[in-house]
Formats: sequence, structure tokens, C-alpha cells
Amino acid sequence: MAAAIALAERGKGLTGNNPSVGCIIVKDDIVIGRGWTQPGGRPHAEAMALEQAGPAVKGSTIYVSLEPCAHESVRGPSCADGLVAAKPARVVAALTDPDPRTAGSGFDRLVAAGISVERDAMAVEAHASLAGFISRITKGRPHVTLKLATSLDGCIAMADGRSRWITNDAARAHAHVERARCDAILVGAGTVRADTPKLNVRLPGLEGRSPRRIMLGSGDAPEGWEAIRTPDAISALDCNSLIVEGGAQTASAFLRAGLVDRLMLYRAPIIIGGGKPCLGDIGLADLSEAHGRWQLSDTRMLGNNRFEVYEAIPCSQA
Amino acid sequence: MAAAIALAERGKGLTGNNPSVGCIIVKDDIVIGRGWTQPGGRPHAEAMALEQAGPAVKGSTIYVSLEPCAHESVRGPSCADGLVAAKPARVVAALTDPDPRTAGSGFDRLVAAGISVERDAMAVEAHASLAGFISRITKGRPHVTLKLATSLDGCIAMADGRSRWITNDAARAHAHVERARCDAILVGAGTVRADTPKLNVRLPGLEGRSPRRIMLGSGDAPEGWEAIRTPDAISALDCNSLIVEGGAQTASAFLRAGLVDRLMLYRAPIIIGGGKPCLGDIGLADLSEAHGRWQLSDTRMLGNNRFEVYEAIPCSQA
Repeated sequence: MAAAIALAERGKGLTGNNPSVGCIIVKDDIVIGRGWTQPGGRPHAEAMALEQAGPAVKGSTIYVSLEPCAHESVRGPSCADGLVAAKPARVVAALTDPDPRTAGSGFDRLVAAGISVERDAMAVEAHASLAGFISRITKGRPHVTLKLATSLDGCIAMADGRSRWITNDAARAHAHVERARCDAILVGAGTVRADTPKLNVRLPGLEGRSPRRIMLGSGDAPEGWEAIRTPDAISALDCNSLIVEGGAQTASAFLRAGLVDRLMLYRAPIIIGGGKPCLGDIGLADLSEAHGRWQLSDTRMLGNNRFEVYEAIPCSQA
Repeated sequence: MAAAIALAERGKGLTGNNPSVGCIIVKDDIVIGRGWTQPGGRPHAEAMALEQAGPAVKGSTIYVSLEPCAHESVRGPSCADGLVAAKPARVVAALTDPDPRTAGSGFDRLVAAGISVERDAMAVEAHASLAGFISRITKGRPHVTLKLATSLDGCIAMADGRSRWITNDAARAHAHVERARCDAILVGAGTVRADTPKLNVRLPGLEGRSPRRIMLGSGDAPEGWEAIRTPDAISALDCNSLIVEGGAQTASAFLRAGLVDRLMLYRAPIIIGGGKPCLGDIGLADLSEAHGRWQLSDTRMLGNNRFEVYEAIPCSQA
């Protein structure tokens, strides 16, 4: 399953509003098929892996990071039907599809066809892998990552706005990989007007993976950009994952609205002193409210810059 | 030598303007004496270890984190003379004493007495252990640590000044241990007037190790405090180590004056947003100047708080 989830990473940022799923077919301890959701969302991971495995799939075990879909679409038959026809002995899946058109009926169809089904294998990891899709289906909005690149004293620029550069080459390259893995990037209208940032992926071989560009605020968006007026309007973007890249007022607006699922922090070993703070008011009434909101999920050094990921702790657990 | 340096840590904050030194005497692979600089600075580490070892010291090897002193004082004979009389076979030392009253003459006296002398053993570690003493002798001022306790967004308080609490119990206890190991703590006059902080060591068993309290700024210092008017005036404090604890203006004044040797950062996984920044203007003319100034030397988690130590990179290397 870990390998299937790793394959799913290949589709990140390319599958539109489809989930990026991974699938591995194993028979007699040999991998006979590997698939992941293809650009635009089709073929699905299972279809690609079945195609690779051919008739040998009969009697095999299939690992897939999400329940096979049970709904046909104009773009092809459902994966559940494809699997039933291919006759594997066993299907191991990480998550039940939250999409109401499937929501367990994919599994039901396999079981009815005499295929052994195992659910919830590495569900936590698959949940992280499919966080964007799950957010879109269950919350009706993309999974939102707020990226902040700061000095040790929490500044994103000098007082006069100069910000090139705070973080190092490795951190900036890492941030570009993260851009390539998401569907859309958002910045505030002020940042658009001040910097007209390209927000593209500037890494060799990944130039074609630049995400949609979204501007928050009033005024006309530049060509090739989309505009939304308020953070809430991200629901209308119909995409799985969004990175909010700034500036401070935009970042604060998303935090104030409770619309940040993940913080991605890059921190350079420099001191600016009296620079532009990375955030403005987020509506905190008391310090006690600030605790128990964020849980460190990943950290590493990128050269001499520290990278940290914090996940929002659901309010019910806080 | 590592054990001798570890012993030296016991004296930190207790030896006045004397260096806190560690000493171990070994004979036939057995430790026969251990010493460290005693409170107030006497006995010296060597004298304590020699007393423990007794006549067995003859023919032994003595490890000591700093060159034995060669200057007699009203408080007792020099360690070099004490060692010559004790007749060890060999003395291994980490550092040559920068104090001009010794500065190599301690070693000379041992060599002249036929004792084998090995220098510069674990010099880097000993230099870190004796950073305060070395700073006082070579720069004429204490080694200065700036402590900052912030949120992820670099704030030390909410906009209205509320700051209890940002960091967790483990981080605050750690900070109290650091207080116990230093000679003096400094805060700004504004902080004194606003908070009248105790700045003492509030850890069971260490209450007696509270350092001197220094106020920076104008106005009268409270009873039990000393006052200085400018950061430069720390030269007159005649101590080895100073922790600057705030607030932001005081911290910035020390950075602006180039008087910070070490940053000690405690960072809680909370977001304040629009709070009080940890620093004000430090006189940075360009972002490029900010790079290459600080080198991470230690980091660890204290519960869910991150602790980091950065050492100032000498300008000649930057």
C-alpha cells in the first residue's frame, strides 16, 4: 500500500478535481501492474494497472489507495466493474471513497462478485495523500496550505518591502516542487499589483506543471489569472488543493476565516529586525485560544533553512 | 577531557569573574581526583582534584580544561606551582589561558619541571565551555546570549502586551536552567516598569543560583538591581556571561550594537497574528547583510516547542 500511495504522488496537481490515486497489482510476489491517475483524471489508476497486468490479473491481489469508483461516466466504465471483470482474488484498499456516487458501493460490487475485500489499510497515510480530494468532497472547498517564508524574527521582508532573498536556493526550489503538486496558488491583490509574481514552477522539466493562479481581492486579475473576492469563494474554484502564498494580509484573512489546513514554513537563519511581519491580525481574543491548534507533521533542514509543516488540529480535538 | 569539560559545567554561574574549569586526574586507568572551580572562584579545579587524589597523584595524568594558572593571588598559590609539587607525569590541557598573567607561562613552568604537557585537546569544546571567560578577557565584556521566546509568527506577545504564556512548561524550565548557568540577566527599563520581572531561577534546588539583575535604560533600578545606560556599558559589569531577555527594543539595541554572541530561541507552535514583534530595527541596510551572520549550533524539541541556539559568525568569516 505504501508503494501505491507513493505512485499516487505522481498525479498530484495534474488530475483536475479527480483524486490522485495509486494502484499496484501483485501476483505470486511479483508486481504485474502499476497505475496512477493520469493527467486530467483519466485513465484511473486501476485501469492503467489492469491494462499493464493483462490476463495475469486473474487471482492476483490489487492494492489501491482509494475505493474503486462505482459510477460510470461519459469518460469510461467504472473501476469496480473493470475489477469484477478482471477477477482478482483480493482487493486491498486504504480508504472508502467519500464521493456519494461511490461511498462503499464500489466495495459492495466487488464483494458481490466473490472478490475478497480488505479496507482501511494505511488509512492515515492515504488520508494525507488524498487530503485535497477529501476536503473538496466533504467540505466543499480545496485543502488549503499557507506558505510562509520568514527570517528567524518572523519577517517576510524589510520594512520597505525588499524581500529578495530571505530563504536559500534549496528552500525556494522545494517551494516550487510544492507548487507543482498543487492545483492552484493564491496571492492577494496587493501582492499582484506590487510584484506581479509569476507563481509558476521554475524547475527544469516541471515548467508544464504550473498551477492555476488566483488573486484575492478587488480589481481586475491579470491575464491568465482568476479572481475571487473573499477567502470563502475558494469553494467555487472546484479544485482539490490550494497554496496561499501571501502577502501578510491575505494569509491573515485565510487564518481568520479558519480556512487553513496546513502551514508550510521556510525559515532562514537571518535576522531582519523591524521588518514586515508575516501575519496581521487573525482575530485572536486570548493567548489560550492560540494553543492546541497546530501539530508539527514534518520538519527537515534545507541547507541552512529549516522547513516545517504543521497540520491544523480539528477544533473537536483541540 | 570531555569529562573534565562536563565537570566545568557545574561551576557555571557561580565562579564570579573566574573561569569555570574542570579537572580529572587519572592513574592506571582509574580516576583518582575530580575537581571544578568552586563557588566564588576558589579553590580552583586543579586544587580540588589534587586534594582528592592525595599522594597518588605522583606519576598520574591530569586533564584540565584550561591552562593551570601561573599567577599567585592573595587567595592562594598558583595551580602551576601546585602541580609541579605534586609531580604528575603528564598534563593534558584544552586551552592556553588568555589571561595575560598566565598566557602560556603555566605550561612553561610544568615543562621546566620535567612534566610532559599536551595542549589543545578538545580545544573547540573547551572554547565553548569557557566562552564567557574568554570574552571578558579578550573583548573586555561578558559573552552575551539573546533569548527570544516567540510564536511561529515571531511574536512575543499579543498586540496589547499579553504574553502569558506563549512557550510551554518545558521551555520555561529550560530557560530557568540557562539563567542558573549565567552570571547576569538584563532586561530593558520598559520591561522592568511594566512587568517588574523577578528574573530569578524558579527551579527546586536551584533557587540560590539566581544571577545578578541588570536594567538597561534610564531611571532608577529597583532594589537588588543594577542599572546601565547603554549596551556598551556591559563592559563595566565585570562578569563572564549575560543573558538579554527583552523586551524587543532592548534586544534590538544589543543586536544593533553588534553585542550578541548567541541567540537562544524558544518557539511555540502557535500563531498570534498582528502581535508584538520580537525585534525592532537593528540597523540593517540591505537583506544581503543579514546572511552569513548566524550558525545553528544546537536544536531540539522541548515538548512541542522548538529550541534553537545560533552562534554569531565572526565578521571576518562572514
